[in-house]
Amino acid sequence: MIELIPVAGIGEVHPNDDLAALIASSPTELMDRDVVVITQKVVSKAESRFAPEEEKAAHVDAESVRILRRTPDGMVISQTRHGFVCANAGIDVSNVPGDNLVLLPIDPDASARRIRSRLQNHPGVDVAVIISDTFGRAWRIGQTDVAIGVAGIDPFIDHAGQPDTQGRPMTATKICVADELASAAELVMGKTKEVCAVVVRGAEVIWDRGAASDIVRRPDGDMFR
Amino acid sequence: MIELIPVAGIGEVHPNDDLAALIASSPTELMDRDVVVITQKVVSKAESRFAPEEEKAAHVDAESVRILRRTPDGMVISQTRHGFVCANAGIDVSNVPGDNLVLLPIDPDASARRIRSRLQNHPGVDVAVIISDTFGRAWRIGQTDVAIGVAGIDPFIDHAGQPDTQGRPMTATKICVADELASAAELVMGKTKEVCAVVVRGAEVIWDRGAASDIVRRPDGDMFR
Repeated sequence: MIELIPVAGIGEVHPNDDLAALIASSPTELMDRDVVVITQKVVSKAESRFAPEEEKAAHVDAESVRILRRTPDGMVISQTRHGFVCANAGIDVSNVPGDNLVLLPIDPDASARRIRSRLQNHPGVDVAVIISDTFGRAWRIGQTDVAIGVAGIDPFIDHAGQPDTQGRPMTATKICVADELASAAELVMGKTKEVCAVVVRGAEVIWDRGAASDIVRRPDGDMFR
Repeated sequence: MIELIPVAGIGEVHPNDDLAALIASSPTELMDRDVVVITQKVVSKAESRFAPEEEKAAHVDAESVRILRRTPDGMVISQTRHGFVCANAGIDVSNVPGDNLVLLPIDPDASARRIRSRLQNHPGVDVAVIISDTFGRAWRIGQTDVAIGVAGIDPFIDHAGQPDTQGRPMTATKICVADELASAAELVMGKTKEVCAVVVRGAEVIWDRGAASDIVRRPDGDMFR
């Protein structure tokens, strides 16, 4: 069984807040080998990634390395500096105080590693950290949460070559568990609730170095550029 | 808290097996308002959707209405009769006895409704049913599970117009919870394990008519045709 447990009591996050300390002080106690999923929004807030709302277009341009589509209503689908393909370079205004935008963290994998390392010191648990964001998809309506920062686990479980239940080697089955963990956590967060972090307990993952940047398709492996 | 609970003891599924009866006889007891996620593979087996392995190319063609890409190693990315964009029209050979292919169910939404209706009769619980499959994605490496059949819930939670935590109306936030539920369940299933159904208990969903066909982008809303 896997449990998805909200990290209670974090409240509004402000610039320079220590997210690891806020998570550690929650009544939701962490255990070794938990996966802690944290929304991008609070990581960006703690890292002061704000900009005035009227500068939106300039920031979307600055955060993008390649524009894929522009919609009639002014939304841009682009690839960000990090390699992620998403709407408006991940910049948005919801759940943000004042007339401010929030940009993605400069390096979400580094943010995840930093939070993980602080949780290793206090409360002294060995957990994985995923930073999640809500992305749309090609061909399917609606958005799901995916991993934009990963620390402590391989983002994949690669079944290629392993025997299936019939003993035949499986091909081309490489599950992006990091994205599935982010999606699972979103079910607890919702969008209007004040839950910005979720503990996933009991998931089978590979404890290893890993990064969300590993999930980005390189140009030569991308059939949908 | 949300719990992801494996439905134990189903074992290998054969043509004409009654999946609802198999699930009802599991030691994992269902409760009202559970979401039961079942892999496409066992639904297709129960519905006898087999074909000889040497007819693969013909069946991929027959199940496809539009080819998006062909890879150098012979994989086809196409849109299926159902509207899903995936590899090889969802046809595969893993976890299948003998030299057989398994095709997608003819109408996975109807399959989900049928299983849900049988579970309403015995054991007499009001649950939602999701049929899941493992799909790749544009731009991101690896696969995640998504919903190809839905019964009993709206596949989305649409936050557009609702106030965010700052009281401002949110725009363009329509979460595909059906896909997130499928991804969450996959974390319990793995690929080589014999778990083909998972109960998701405690998720906030909208109990309403809904179908996975609602998730398919129509041509006029599809920027990546």
